[in-house]
Amino acid sequence: MTKRLLVVGAHAADFVWRAAGAIALATAQGAQATVLALSYGERGESGELWKEPGQTVERVKQIRHEQAERAAQILGAQFVCFDLGDYPLEIDRAALERLAAFIRDVGPDIIITHTPHDPFNPDHPVTHDAVMRARLLASGAGVASAFETVKPPVVYCFEPHQPELCGFTPNVFLDITPVYEQKIMAMQQIGSQQYLQHYYTELAERRGNHARRISGDATVRYAEAFQRITPAVVRWLPSHDEGEVSR
Amino acid sequence: MTKRLLVVGAHAADFVWRAAGAIALATAQGAQATVLALSYGERGESGELWKEPGQTVERVKQIRHEQAERAAQILGAQFVCFDLGDYPLEIDRAALERLAAFIRDVGPDIIITHTPHDPFNPDHPVTHDAVMRARLLASGAGVASAFETVKPPVVYCFEPHQPELCGFTPNVFLDITPVYEQKIMAMQQIGSQQYLQHYYTELAERRGNHARRISGDATVRYAEAFQRITPAVVRWLPSHDEGEVSR
Amino acid sequence: MTKRLLVVGAHAADFVWRAAGAIALATAQGAQATVLALSYGERGESGELWKEPGQTVERVKQIRHEQAERAAQILGAQFVCFDLGDYPLEIDRAALERLAAFIRDVGPDIIITHTPHDPFNPDHPVTHDAVMRARLLASGAGVASAFETVKPPVVYCFEPHQPELCGFTPNVFLDITPVYEQKIMAMQQIGSQQYLQHYYTELAERRGNHARRISGDATVRYAEAFQRITPAVVRWLPSHDEGEVSR
Amino acid sequence: MTKRLLVVGAHAADFVWRAAGAIALATAQGAQATVLALSYGERGESGELWKEPGQTVERVKQIRHEQAERAAQILGAQFVCFDLGDYPLEIDRAALERLAAFIRDVGPDIIITHTPHDPFNPDHPVTHDAVMRARLLASGAGVASAFETVKPPVVYCFEPHQPELCGFTPNVFLDITPVYEQKIMAMQQIGSQQYLQHYYTELAERRGNHARRISGDATVRYAEAFQRITPAVVRWLPSHDEGEVSR
Amino acid sequence: MTKRLLVVGAHAADFVWRAAGAIALATAQGAQATVLALSYGERGESGELWKEPGQTVERVKQIRHEQAERAAQILGAQFVCFDLGDYPLEIDRAALERLAAFIRDVGPDIIITHTPHDPFNPDHPVTHDAVMRARLLASGAGVASAFETVKPPVVYCFEPHQPELCGFTPNVFLDITPVYEQKIMAMQQIGSQQYLQHYYTELAERRGNHARRISGDATVRYAEAFQRITPAVVRWLPSHDEGEVSR
Amino acid sequence: MTKRLLVVGAHAADFVWRAAGAIALATAQGAQATVLALSYGERGESGELWKEPGQTVERVKQIRHEQAERAAQILGAQFVCFDLGDYPLEIDRAALERLAAFIRDVGPDIIITHTPHDPFNPDHPVTHDAVMRARLLASGAGVASAFETVKPPVVYCFEPHQPELCGFTPNVFLDITPVYEQKIMAMQQIGSQQYLQHYYTELAERRGNHARRISGDATVRYAEAFQRITPAVVRWLPSHDEGEVSR
Repeated sequence: MTKRLLVVGAHAADFVWRAAGAIALATAQGAQATVLALSYGERGESGELWKEPGQTVERVKQIRHEQAERAAQILGAQFVCFDLGDYPLEIDRAALERLAAFIRDVGPDIIITHTPHDPFNPDHPVTHDAVMRARLLASGAGVASAFETVKPPVVYCFEPHQPELCGFTPNVFLDITPVYEQKIMAMQQIGSQQYLQHYYTELAERRGNHARRISGDATVRYAEAFQRITPAVVRWLPSHDEGEVSR
Repeated sequence: MTKRLLVVGAHAADFVWRAAGAIALATAQGAQATVLALSYGERGESGELWKEPGQTVERVKQIRHEQAERAAQILGAQFVCFDLGDYPLEIDRAALERLAAFIRDVGPDIIITHTPHDPFNPDHPVTHDAVMRARLLASGAGVASAFETVKPPVVYCFEPHQPELCGFTPNVFLDITPVYEQKIMAMQQIGSQQYLQHYYTELAERRGNHARRISGDATVRYAEAFQRITPAVVRWLPSHDEGEVSR
Repeated sequence: MTKRLLVVGAHAADFVWRAAGAIALATAQGAQATVLALSYGERGESGELWKEPGQTVERVKQIRHEQAERAAQILGAQFVCFDLGDYPLEIDRAALERLAAFIRDVGPDIIITHTPHDPFNPDHPVTHDAVMRARLLASGAGVASAFETVKPPVVYCFEPHQPELCGFTPNVFLDITPVYEQKIMAMQQIGSQQYLQHYYTELAERRGNHARRISGDATVRYAEAFQRITPAVVRWLPSHDEGEVSR
Repeated sequence: MTKRLLVVGAHAADFVWRAAGAIALATAQGAQATVLALSYGERGESGELWKEPGQTVERVKQIRHEQAERAAQILGAQFVCFDLGDYPLEIDRAALERLAAFIRDVGPDIIITHTPHDPFNPDHPVTHDAVMRARLLASGAGVASAFETVKPPVVYCFEPHQPELCGFTPNVFLDITPVYEQKIMAMQQIGSQQYLQHYYTELAERRGNHARRISGDATVRYAEAFQRITPAVVRWLPSHDEGEVSR
Repeated sequence: MTKRLLVVGAHAADFVWRAAGAIALATAQGAQATVLALSYGERGESGELWKEPGQTVERVKQIRHEQAERAAQILGAQFVCFDLGDYPLEIDRAALERLAAFIRDVGPDIIITHTPHDPFNPDHPVTHDAVMRARLLASGAGVASAFETVKPPVVYCFEPHQPELCGFTPNVFLDITPVYEQKIMAMQQIGSQQYLQHYYTELAERRGNHARRISGDATVRYAEAFQRITPAVVRWLPSHDEGEVSR
Repeated sequence: MTKRLLVVGAHAADFVWRAAGAIALATAQGAQATVLALSYGERGESGELWKEPGQTVERVKQIRHEQAERAAQILGAQFVCFDLGDYPLEIDRAALERLAAFIRDVGPDIIITHTPHDPFNPDHPVTHDAVMRARLLASGAGVASAFETVKPPVVYCFEPHQPELCGFTPNVFLDITPVYEQKIMAMQQIGSQQYLQHYYTELAERRGNHARRISGDATVRYAEAFQRITPAVVRWLPSHDEGEVSR
């Protein structure tokens, strides 16, 4: 069982659309889940809030924090934000080391983050690169080193908005049927981006269709797609019937 | 748990070097394992036997059958050979349908076979393509069809002799430490290709080193590398600590 | 303006789900559209029909022909089937030359067909390869040859069921908003695969979302995605505002 | 019709060799064309000027400015240079925001720039990355944001000096036959790099040959090759006969 | 020194445009060079000859044979044609074994042939695949086998007409300056495809420019580009100054 | 013959495991070899030294310097370290220009360095990128420039620890049999990373096996694998028998 799950997004709400099911499944099974947002997405993704007269950046951040925190609570996760700014998000040496220290503190078995490429968003690839680099600083070279290290966490990329154009090739379909209602509720908290709820509700259904076709398991109704980018080390070769969709 | 494992090789002994550990682990856990060789490799891989004066092709095939069968027995698997000829191996319509019927009969959860590319061997890619095509004929389009279908098996490629030049990128490292002695014994049965034992013994150690670095699990001593080419459908996101190397 | 459009599918109904919008738009603008099915998909995709007691292959083909023909009529296209058999579809020399002759006769400006890879279907890549090969036989080497040639048609691949796993990267999003109702009606004719209507209705909406994000054109509601695989030769560099979504 | 075209080069003269035809065609059709050079290429590409005794960097920049400006005028375009220095060109936060503001001001339908990879030049990929990032900052995430946005411009890469080694795969061949004389005249203005004229004159002929083979249109004599890297959103599927080489 | 060079083309004249320099350099250094054409290209590439009234296929083949033979003689090579037919060229089991036997007889150090992909020609990829397969049948699996084997020849692909669209990435530039006049003369023999002489003359100059830029060697005036697809086994790491352009 | 060889590693001992054979072969043939380490690897790779009570960073660096220097001496090379720090190694503008000046001073025919990707080490790709960028600054654009330039050196990547996961595809296998003992002795100097000796001793044997299979040359017992990433400019096409393994 995964004991500690860390989801890192560029903006406050990325985790909701793309990994809410994964988080809810993990916490339902007793895992500790942490969501880290590198920024609030206050410039790039909060346009709805800025339509309000007299809006201020502090107020926008506060609302985004509250929305993300409520969504995280529904999923059983803790929400943390580094508030590094967005559009563009930039990671300097201090931010990189702060991120490495955070990973060392959390000691996650799994990290979920953005894809390395995303031609539609300037902050997503920056986040991916920072996470991958900080993960190596936290876990070391696999040999004795001068600093404390954690076991190298498994890394998954969650699904970007336009998967094919981001080079996203899903190799893991997660059956989120048991926690689907939680995901819907979490999405409803993000009032600043209501237009995404319908889109990601349909996506869960579409990925469920794919998962059924791939596995032949007719019980999967909703799924989230991920691309695992670090190898698996296993004690037996997984099939769909063992340790996977074996209900 | 995997219940039925099918390993398909172009030649009689391919399964030993590349998947003996996977087979032994599966059968130790109660699975039924079947090894299918499309040919005996009587022309391309049996040169040692041909050095014997008065050698005949029937005798070469018989020796290869006996060696492969003994190796399979040690691993707890059944050995079957289609005897389609090698160098070159060719798959006509009848052979394709025979292979599809075999897959339908065995009903494997997992199929392990060659990589799609191998610039060092003319028969390996032919086998890969035939297996992938026969698997689709056996499992159908994922919708109701005119014929009996089986659930689509998960497919892994085992490691070719020169992995980088075959485009092989391992994404699953299987800890074969518990069955390592069985693999050694199985390899010893293939007297016609003794020169490969040292090579694949060292490879197990090397892949063990990789697996330790990837997972941080110091108990892995020997491993086999695989490339999974069909997606996983799962109930939770696997990490190294859960359902994998969780000892 | 395109004057002649040719859509080639492995099975009778492929064109409906994947290119109905493209066909309807073309014929609405005065083009002549031809749909060629290499088989009826009588074995792999007609399972619903086979549930009927006493069903025969001839009856299945007849029903599939009628359904496809009605769908084609709604879109303003002619439907032709080579009836070469499916699961597996095989293209021998005679079938290849028949296909080349067909392309020479139709003289299409554009051909739309399957992607070169599809790990979920054994007949789709066979169709792609046959179309590409027949196209070259019909159009020649671009130099004087011993036989009649047609201008080399532009080639698009339509969207497969699981795009990322087929290596499909859309580079053309076609706004089908004006003909959306026609596509719905055409899909309704394919009674033998009713379960696909909901899936492809949602897909049109999803691709419309993508097209709006890419172009900034808020009027696109429904779209079909294509991957153009032959280069464009143009008199000016196309943007979204000129000759594309210029309403 | 394209109304606003922006060409961004690392050095003062990049636009001439690689996109002069595209610019001349656009302005001939009434478009407004802007050429932005991030540097004058005063160090890396102006060796001929430095052979003059007593040469100064200010004088080199002045000559390069005049040459580029004259070439731009011949093509009907405006020339602007950020003068950020070359070999190496570096883009800091201020330069990035200046570039984003420039794109927002120009509001181009199309941007043409360097390829993402160029193992022969340290400044070309830096320019590509800066343009792609600034374009996203100028156009936003496709959703309501805190700042003014422009419609996301279509992006083309122009042809690098050694295309295959830069990973350049042309997918658009632009027929520049009608403006070929203008391109020759523009190239003649760049006295500091005369050795490139013959090379790019031949290249236009070679790309014309390719365009004829691809389209079957014998009237194309000269062409420029481009790689479009953002998808098209269209109202009908383009062929060569419609809206492309339809003379 | 290479002692035996084998060039395999789909059609009679492929070797002239693409490898004449390589052949002339080899034979000038004492190597034995053999050109094998799988067909005469009598249908796809001999259109000029078919314009002659009363032309027959036998006469076309004869003219093509004579032209190719004269070109080969100028380069010091022997010309052989299997006359398997073109458009489409097909390789059955007998042709494959004939090709393997031919390779075994010639025992080449180097084979030069077409690229694996060519979207402009149906016969070029077929030739590539047949050569690669026959080469493996001739050289065996690198272990003792039941048949006579030759050392595995190094394989180069020569340059296709539209390199980027064939996935051709040159990694070897051959300085053909010393034998340039021989290549011109050889090209002049192919009267049936005169239109290619100008194109390939310019290409030699263009590839010479590339070779100068890559190596810094100003003496290279003309070059041919190749893509080596089998690894090198060497006694020291080659640079441009040693064993390469070390004049 | 190569006259000047430069090996650039992120950490003090990288050159020993990955290129000791190449260095020893070059110096045995009269070449001048320089090893540049960008850091001592004092944090990431020196854990064994840090186990000593009262250890200091200066002492660790001194030990690492002495070990690397002794290994270099055994191979006939000079060892230089920039001491830029590791985990993370960062290259600012000054370090980049220092590296470019170093390359200009050494004037190497060949540079050997890390692969562009390495998911197991944060400093290796940084080194690769810095070397490639500094090489361009040192050699210029291939045209006259404002600064002194050197001929563009050939670039090889040496083998990373987990080659397939770093995208490493070897295309050059160097026969290090004649200098194998020197490599063993050099590795023995790196007392701070003793655990790597066995691994890289076996690797030399494994790569020797590959080299024999590729070339058919049975005399190769030990090899190092490299990936050449800049094209070759040659006077004849290399085979295995000429200028390579031609003993």
